[in-house]
Amino acid sequence: MKERQLIEKIRRLAAASQNRAVLRGIGDDCAILRPRAGHDLLVTTDFSIEDVHFRRKWHPAESVGHRCLARGLSDIAAMGGTPLACFLSLGLPDNLPRNWTENFFRGFQALARRFRVQLAGGDLSSAPAIVADIIVLGQVPSGRALLRSGARVGDRIYVTGALGHSAAVLKQLRNAKKIRAIPSNAHFFPQPRVDAGLWLQQRGLATAMIDLSDGLSVDLAHICQESGVSARIAAANLPVTKGADLLLALHGGEDYELLFTAPARSRLPRRIAGVPVTEIGVIQKRTNYSPAIEILGENGRVTALAQRGWEHFKQ
Amino acid sequence: MKERQLIEKIRRLAAASQNRAVLRGIGDDCAILRPRAGHDLLVTTDFSIEDVHFRRKWHPAESVGHRCLARGLSDIAAMGGTPLACFLSLGLPDNLPRNWTENFFRGFQALARRFRVQLAGGDLSSAPAIVADIIVLGQVPSGRALLRSGARVGDRIYVTGALGHSAAVLKQLRNAKKIRAIPSNAHFFPQPRVDAGLWLQQRGLATAMIDLSDGLSVDLAHICQESGVSARIAAANLPVTKGADLLLALHGGEDYELLFTAPARSRLPRRIAGVPVTEIGVIQKRTNYSPAIEILGENGRVTALAQRGWEHFKQ
Repeated sequence: MKERQLIEKIRRLAAASQNRAVLRGIGDDCAILRPRAGHDLLVTTDFSIEDVHFRRKWHPAESVGHRCLARGLSDIAAMGGTPLACFLSLGLPDNLPRNWTENFFRGFQALARRFRVQLAGGDLSSAPAIVADIIVLGQVPSGRALLRSGARVGDRIYVTGALGHSAAVLKQLRNAKKIRAIPSNAHFFPQPRVDAGLWLQQRGLATAMIDLSDGLSVDLAHICQESGVSARIAAANLPVTKGADLLLALHGGEDYELLFTAPARSRLPRRIAGVPVTEIGVIQKRTNYSPAIEILGENGRVTALAQRGWEHFKQ
Repeated sequence: MKERQLIEKIRRLAAASQNRAVLRGIGDDCAILRPRAGHDLLVTTDFSIEDVHFRRKWHPAESVGHRCLARGLSDIAAMGGTPLACFLSLGLPDNLPRNWTENFFRGFQALARRFRVQLAGGDLSSAPAIVADIIVLGQVPSGRALLRSGARVGDRIYVTGALGHSAAVLKQLRNAKKIRAIPSNAHFFPQPRVDAGLWLQQRGLATAMIDLSDGLSVDLAHICQESGVSARIAAANLPVTKGADLLLALHGGEDYELLFTAPARSRLPRRIAGVPVTEIGVIQKRTNYSPAIEILGENGRVTALAQRGWEHFKQ
C-alpha cells in the first residue's frame, strides 16, 4: 500500500470515531483541540516496538493495535481523566504484508471507538522494524488529576481486577505452549480502566493512583517514592489471576489495572464501574532505606519486597 | 548508561527549560498542561528515524536532536501558534555510544530553551535503530489558527527565507563532497520560523499557511487542494539559496520555511521577525485537473509544475 493510500484509509477510519474536543484532525500542519473550559489537559506517550514490546509471531496485528492504544488510555485512566484524542506515529518495514497494517488499525480503531477517542494525527514512515508511538490526550477538571504523590500514612492500598494474567500468558508463549490454562484475552486485549479511574476521580476518594504497567512491586515503589512514604502489602490478599502465581502477580507487568490509595475511613464498594476492587495493604511512614515495601507472606513473616519489574522480552 | 540514569539526566535537562503552561512534567502517568484560557491547543508529531530521516555518518548527534525538535516547532509555526511543551519518545540501539545520546540532548535542549518549550514527558526504549518521535504542543487564540484551507483566488503567495539549502547540502553529502560551497547550518540546524508565524497570525494578514517540509511543489499543492484553488508561481521570483538551483528550490524538502498566502491589498514588509519575505506567485481559480500549479519559467513560458517532493534518502 502506498503512503498516500494508507493515509487516505487512516483518514476514513479516523472519521469513524470523533470527539467534539477535536476541532481539526488529520490534514493540516497540526491538529487543533479545544478541551473543556475549567479542565486541565493530560498527555502521555508510549512506544510499541517490534521484538521489544511485542513479537509478530506471538501477537496478532489486531492485538498489537489494541495494546498500543490501551497503553496510552491506561495512563489517562491512572490520572482519573477522560480521553479525548490520540496521535499515532507509525514506522513500518517496506516488506510488511498489507493486511498486517489493516488488522493493526482494526484492533486500534475498535478500542478508539469504545472510548470515543479520535485519531487526530500522527506520522507515517518506513522503518527497520514496526515502531508505533501512541500519544493520548485527555482532560480532567482543573486541579483534580490523581497524582502518584498523594498517598498518606494510614491510607489503604487497592488494586482493580486481577494480577499476573499478562505475565502468565507471556510465560506460556515463551515456553511455546498453547495458551489454554488461562484466559489469554487479558494479555492480547487488555481493558484500560478508564471508567474506574473516572469514578474515583469524580468522588475524590483516591489519594494517589498509578496504572500497573511495569508490575506491582515497581509501580507501588513509584507511589511510595513520589509520596515520601513506604508500604506494606499482604500476599494472602493479592487477587492473583487463576493460572498465575504470587511472583507473577508481584512482578509481572502489563496488567493495566489501577493501583491506588484511599483513606482508611473511605467506604469503597467491592466493584467500581464493573471491575472488582481489592484491598491489598497499607501505607506506612517512610523508612531510611527507600523505596521500601514490606510484604506479609502467607507464612506470617514480613520481608522486604524487591523491585523486580517487567523486563522487555527481547532476547 | 542505564535507563534509570538516563531518565534522571533527562529530568534535570528538562527542568532547565520550563513553561508555565506545564503544571506537571516528567514523573507521573501523564503530564498535566493548562493552556491559556481562550486559546486552542495545537498538536503535531514527527518521526526522526535513522537511515530514513538522517544518517549517523552524515549528521552529528547535536544536529539530529536539533532537527528532531525543529520539525515539530515548524508545524506549530505554520499554524501561527506559540509552542508550549514537547514530548520525546526515544528508541536507542543497545550498542549506541553513550555520548551520542548526550550530544543528541545537547542539540535538542539548546533549541528547546530558545523557544521556552518544556520537555514534559515521553518514553524510552531499546530499538533496532535510532527512532525519535517528537510531539509538540502549542497554543493559539481560539479560532485564529492559520489553516491550509484559507487561500482565496487573487491572494499572493509568499515564502520566508531562501529555498533549496537543505536539499543542496544533502546532494553534496550524497556525492561525498566536503560541504564548502554553501553554508550547511541551514541543513544541520534549521531555524523554525515561530516568530514570523506568530507575527502573521497576530496581524491577521495570512489567509493560509504551511511549512516547507516536503518541498515547495508538494506543499503548495497541499494549500491548493485544501483551499480548492490552483496557483501560478514565477521561477524568476523564487529566492533560491546560493549554491542550490531552481529544481532543488522547487522540490527539495526540509527547508522549514513558511509558505503562505495573503490578499493582494496586504502591504507586507520585506522582512518579518528578521526573516526576508518574498512574493513568488498568485492563487488562481481551481482547474479541472487538480491540484494544478503552473510555473512561469525564466524563458517566459508557462508550464505545469509536477509534484516531486522530497523522498526519504534511504537506499
